[in-house]
Amino acid sequence: MASALLIDLYELTMVDAYLAEGLHDEAAFSLFVRRLPARRNYLLACGLEEALTYLETLRFSPEELAWLESLGRFSQQLLDWLEHFHFTGDVHAVPEGTPVFAEEPLLEVIAPLPEAQLVETYLLNQLHLQTLAASKAARVVEAARGRPVVDFGVRRMHGEDAGLKVARAAYVAGVSATSNLLAGQRYGIPVAGTLAHSYIQAHDDELAAFRAYARRFPDTTLLVDTYDTLEGVWKVVKLARELGPDFQVRAVRLDSGDLVSLSHSARTLLDAAGLERVQIFASGGLDEDEVALLLAHHSPIDAFGVGTAMGVSADVPSLDIAYKLVEYAGHGRLKLSPGKVLLPGRKQVFREEEDGVARRDVLARHGEALPGRPLLRRAMHAGRRLAGASPSLEAIRTYVREELARLPLEVTQLEPLRPPYPVVTSPELSAAKEQVLTWLREESHAS
Amino acid sequence: MASALLIDLYELTMVDAYLAEGLHDEAAFSLFVRRLPARRNYLLACGLEEALTYLETLRFSPEELAWLESLGRFSQQLLDWLEHFHFTGDVHAVPEGTPVFAEEPLLEVIAPLPEAQLVETYLLNQLHLQTLAASKAARVVEAARGRPVVDFGVRRMHGEDAGLKVARAAYVAGVSATSNLLAGQRYGIPVAGTLAHSYIQAHDDELAAFRAYARRFPDTTLLVDTYDTLEGVWKVVKLARELGPDFQVRAVRLDSGDLVSLSHSARTLLDAAGLERVQIFASGGLDEDEVALLLAHHSPIDAFGVGTAMGVSADVPSLDIAYKLVEYAGHGRLKLSPGKVLLPGRKQVFREEEDGVARRDVLARHGEALPGRPLLRRAMHAGRRLAGASPSLEAIRTYVREELARLPLEVTQLEPLRPPYPVVTSPELSAAKEQVLTWLREESHAS
Repeated sequence: MASALLIDLYELTMVDAYLAEGLHDEAAFSLFVRRLPARRNYLLACGLEEALTYLETLRFSPEELAWLESLGRFSQQLLDWLEHFHFTGDVHAVPEGTPVFAEEPLLEVIAPLPEAQLVETYLLNQLHLQTLAASKAARVVEAARGRPVVDFGVRRMHGEDAGLKVARAAYVAGVSATSNLLAGQRYGIPVAGTLAHSYIQAHDDELAAFRAYARRFPDTTLLVDTYDTLEGVWKVVKLARELGPDFQVRAVRLDSGDLVSLSHSARTLLDAAGLERVQIFASGGLDEDEVALLLAHHSPIDAFGVGTAMGVSADVPSLDIAYKLVEYAGHGRLKLSPGKVLLPGRKQVFREEEDGVARRDVLARHGEALPGRPLLRRAMHAGRRLAGASPSLEAIRTYVREELARLPLEVTQLEPLRPPYPVVTSPELSAAKEQVLTWLREESHAS
Repeated sequence: MASALLIDLYELTMVDAYLAEGLHDEAAFSLFVRRLPARRNYLLACGLEEALTYLETLRFSPEELAWLESLGRFSQQLLDWLEHFHFTGDVHAVPEGTPVFAEEPLLEVIAPLPEAQLVETYLLNQLHLQTLAASKAARVVEAARGRPVVDFGVRRMHGEDAGLKVARAAYVAGVSATSNLLAGQRYGIPVAGTLAHSYIQAHDDELAAFRAYARRFPDTTLLVDTYDTLEGVWKVVKLARELGPDFQVRAVRLDSGDLVSLSHSARTLLDAAGLERVQIFASGGLDEDEVALLLAHHSPIDAFGVGTAMGVSADVPSLDIAYKLVEYAGHGRLKLSPGKVLLPGRKQVFREEEDGVARRDVLARHGEALPGRPLLRRAMHAGRRLAGASPSLEAIRTYVREELARLPLEVTQLEPLRPPYPVVTSPELSAAKEQVLTWLREESHAS
């Protein structure tokens, strides 16, 4: 359960001011990514489940309220309001696992202004992390071309929560398993693992270590690069001869060095020993580019362990994600900050498809009826999530596969797509922007 | 409290095998960064406090044990051992806030092999995150040349735990305040904040918004770039005239556009109106390079709000950090994987100084007595932290300032330092490596 204090101070000062001013009309905030990073042709929306849980359960405890009061910055009106706070609004969102593009809302919050403002920080924090992670992991899965990818990243992910949520997002994106037991327990994600160099090192010789580990875990994967990779493979062959029919080792793991040549040599050694069924598992600083390169060189690798680069989304460690007021008290709202111009009003996205393949998205006003498949659906009403808003992780994985198959091939490939997948603004939305600009000029310049 | 399941599966399978094999002699693991990223001349060690708390409190709950049992992978011996687990070992570590270089241990764990192995994942996860974050934040603080830097990053940090721990690490590194209330409550870090564009947008005109916010929070900072930055500043001037002596606004905040020219123009406007005491606060996609550039252009900026780039350490989102077995049962241990060669045995680092300025570090064997200041100290004995191992955050901040002042100037500057600060290996440590190599060849090739 998230602490209610995991918010920016200014959310509370603004709410305090809203309450004092009586600004509690309905507001709509839109959460979206302003622009795609150069190395992402699309993003996979992820994190809605956590967002809905937060909105349903967010409460301020007596200790938290006492601490806030101790700051001496807030009105009694605010403290009373927080004491009785529960979220009463609506959420429209694209389902988890939906491919999205720049400016398309991942979700919209429709609620009295103070409520919708209060939840900004946490919704951004969670949607950002999981969308970032799922989008990266989808690239690694794509690069592996059907071979299993195992998430090994928890040790260098950014803290405990990332360790858990990134494992979830990677699984959503098609990763097969995780080394992270907590993610296994919490989400039912298959867990997998091999052994570390320390285990080999703790034994006086490598073969003795292999023998002992295979005795305890007969179908294990043995790590062979502690001293010399091919000598390590050779010791696995020795062990196979020693154990005869009891030898059930599933794979050898290569974790360093030139994985192209080592995997070829290891395969040759294993095959020559009649160990065709022993697979080759590769890890060690891999990312989607490395995986693609290994396979482009026909490396006989059966599965990949991918850690840090996927776990921190190393090439793109953040998204330009924002949560912006787009409507208040019935008026569309926008801002004009350079590079951050905002389209007003609640929105819908229509994905137009031809022969089952998306050809463009139309960003439209909420309520417009246009050709194509609408992507945003109501996920929460009056503070309660709707039936169907929380599909199982397995259902989300299936949905991701189906949705990615509906994108043009060049969108899901690793190479940057120029020009990007087309997203156009509906005429009605463009007109709405002009109206708000006119209204704003009149109001603002009158002051 | 961290879940005991936030570990890699292989820690448990290895411990299971160690127990079955009776490998419970004393082991030493060393946690260090293999090499410095190109854009980091040093790292600030951070996260020890969390590591010690983890080691003191790590327990497996009945629910966690039941889930582990349900996997059907583990022996009853392991499950019994986990049920009664508490950490009984020692920790030697550099104090939080110590500048460290490649291969220098941040901490060493000395404990029975299964215990020392079990805690690998979490120690890496926490030391990595906070060291990464403190090292990045120190650069931003350096760039700001004494001007306050406020952490605004929680919304795009990687999850809840990063939101909290990165705020802590940034404060350790010299950041002045955070927008994150949880970090304020948990660690006593000063909290700060201004207001968001949504507040301005929710009002029908900008001046009305400024008026209302300043009424509620007289000494606030007003965000002026929602529509047009200089018009925004002009409205602050209008408000000052309107309020007369009641006008106490502390600063205007510029959040977009060309901050060099906007800050100069804003300063001119404010000064011309007699508002010399109104400061200029800059934010919006800043990092250390942007901050340095703004100041190189003599931009009249008094304080900086820095968010995402600092919060995810955008240019270096991970470190090549490792936790490696260096000694077991009285023997030094190493590994020879390409690019990952390990020095055996427990270590000490001696920082040699001349006229109060460090000139080189000597990486030595534990127990050696060499010239220079030894950096590693015992922080925990028999599972309990020692008195003095948990200084206050304020004390750590002071220590950081002192330690950075003892480094050569070129080390703390932003530009990459080539050649890097010198770290040499003591003759005794070099000899120890040769001894282990010889021993290993004899043992391994005998098999």
